[in-house]
Amino acid sequence: MEERTTTPLILITNDDGITAPGIENLVEAMRGLGTLVVVAPDSPQSGMGHAITIGRPLRLNKLHQFPGVESYQCSGTPVDCVKLATNKILDRKPDICVSGINHGTNASINVIYSGTMSAAMEAAIEGIPSVGCSLADFSFEADFSVAREVIRKVVMQMLAEPLPPHTLLNVNIPKVSKEEFNGIRFCRQANAKWGESFEHRVDPYGKDYYWMVGNFICEDLSEDTDIYALRNNYASIVPVQFDLTDYRSIEMLKKKWPSLR
Amino acid sequence: MEERTTTPLILITNDDGITAPGIENLVEAMRGLGTLVVVAPDSPQSGMGHAITIGRPLRLNKLHQFPGVESYQCSGTPVDCVKLATNKILDRKPDICVSGINHGTNASINVIYSGTMSAAMEAAIEGIPSVGCSLADFSFEADFSVAREVIRKVVMQMLAEPLPPHTLLNVNIPKVSKEEFNGIRFCRQANAKWGESFEHRVDPYGKDYYWMVGNFICEDLSEDTDIYALRNNYASIVPVQFDLTDYRSIEMLKKKWPSLR
Repeated sequence: MEERTTTPLILITNDDGITAPGIENLVEAMRGLGTLVVVAPDSPQSGMGHAITIGRPLRLNKLHQFPGVESYQCSGTPVDCVKLATNKILDRKPDICVSGINHGTNASINVIYSGTMSAAMEAAIEGIPSVGCSLADFSFEADFSVAREVIRKVVMQMLAEPLPPHTLLNVNIPKVSKEEFNGIRFCRQANAKWGESFEHRVDPYGKDYYWMVGNFICEDLSEDTDIYALRNNYASIVPVQFDLTDYRSIEMLKKKWPSLR
Repeated sequence: MEERTTTPLILITNDDGITAPGIENLVEAMRGLGTLVVVAPDSPQSGMGHAITIGRPLRLNKLHQFPGVESYQCSGTPVDCVKLATNKILDRKPDICVSGINHGTNASINVIYSGTMSAAMEAAIEGIPSVGCSLADFSFEADFSVAREVIRKVVMQMLAEPLPPHTLLNVNIPKVSKEEFNGIRFCRQANAKWGESFEHRVDPYGKDYYWMVGNFICEDLSEDTDIYALRNNYASIVPVQFDLTDYRSIEMLKKKWPSLR
C-alpha cells in the first residue's frame, strides 16, 4: 500500500444544498480525518441525477458556512460542483470525495436519479475514491447519529485501504436508533422501480399542470440486496461502477442479429 | 417468439426538444413501423442525465408538430417525458421507446450525462424495449440520412426479435456520407472522461461567472469500443443496463473490510 505523506484532502458535497442539515452532519463526521473542502449547490438539487449545466454559466461563491472549513456554494448541479471543485477550486486531486448525507434513501434504482450519488460517481470518473451516503429519513429534523458513525468508519477504511480505481460506494443508513442498528452489510442494488401517478390540477389561469407522485415498487425480495438490509435495520454498502455496458448482450446480439453487422 | 397481434406502439422522445431536426428525422424514419406518439421536452435538455422534476409541477401540451402523429411537449426533462407518456398519456405500454436522434454523439461516458440515453433508460426500467440514437454532428443542418437508415433497421430488428428485458441500446452514428459508411458494430462503452476547464468572466455588475468548457479524453484505444467504431466510420451499438452494482467488488469488500460487517 502506498504510504500517505500528506494530510488527506476530503472534498464534501451533496444534493440537498449547502444549508441542509445532512451536509452539516457530514462535515462534523469528517472532522479530524483530513483537510475538508465543501463545494455544494446553493439550492436543493434532489433528483438531478447526472445532470450538468451546459448552455448557461455557473456562479460560485465562497462562504463561511462551517467553522474552520473552506466552503463554496455553486449555482449548478451536484455534478457541476465536483467538476468545479476538481478543475477550478482545488490545487490538487482530493484523496476522497464524500457526498451527502442525503435526506432520504438512495438505495436500489434511486442511485440512477440521485444527485448525491451522481456527484460521487463524477468523482469516481475522475479517478477519485468516492462515496455517497444517505439516511432513510426525509425530515430536516432527522437523527443523523448512526449515519455519522457509519460514514466516518467507511471513510477511515477507504483512506486506509483504497478501493479499486473507479469504484464508488453507495452507503444507505436505516432510520433507527443506535440500539436498534444491526451493523453494516455489503449488498447488490435491489431490482426495483418507481410507479408514478400524475395528479392533475388547474392553475388560476385555467391551464393544466401535473404533480408527479412516485410510489416505490420492489418485488426483489432476495436477502443480498440493499433494500433487504435497510428493512432489517442494517446499513447497506453497494459498490457501484459506471461502465453501463451489458457485456453478456454483446455476444448475444452478434449471434442473434448477424444481418445488422 | 410471441406473435404480435396489434400494430406496434412506438413512443418517441429526445433531449434536444420537440422542435429539433433530430426528432423530426426520427419521426420520418419510424413512419410505417407502427403507431407513433411523440412526447418530448419543450426546450433543449442536453446534459440533463437522469434528472427528474420534483418540487415543482409539470406542464404538458398537445401539439400538431408532425403531420398525422400524436405529439405532446412537456416542460420537464427527457425522463419526465417518458414517465408522463407511460403513466398519463398512453393507454397501453408502448412496444418500443426510441429516443433521439441526438445532435452530437452519446458514445462512451456520455451515456451517463445524456438526456437522450436517460429517456431510453427510463423506458427500460419500466420494462419497455428501448433505444437511444445519436449522430456525431452537433449542427442543426446535419445530414441525418445514414442515421435514419440505421435506426430504422435497428427498430425493425428489435420489433421482430426482442432484446432481453431491461436491456437498452445506445446507437451512435458517425458523421459520414452513405458512401463512406462502413456498417454497424456491436461494442462496449469506451473508458473515457471529460476534462473540464472553466472560463472565468465578469458580468456587467462586477460579479464572477464561469463557463464550463469540456474536452473529451479517451485513452482506451481497444478495437471493441464504440469510440473505435465511430472513428472508423462504423455505427456503434452498445447494449446498456442499469444495475450499477460492481459485483466483483462485493466479494472483495467482504474479505478486505471484515471489520465493517
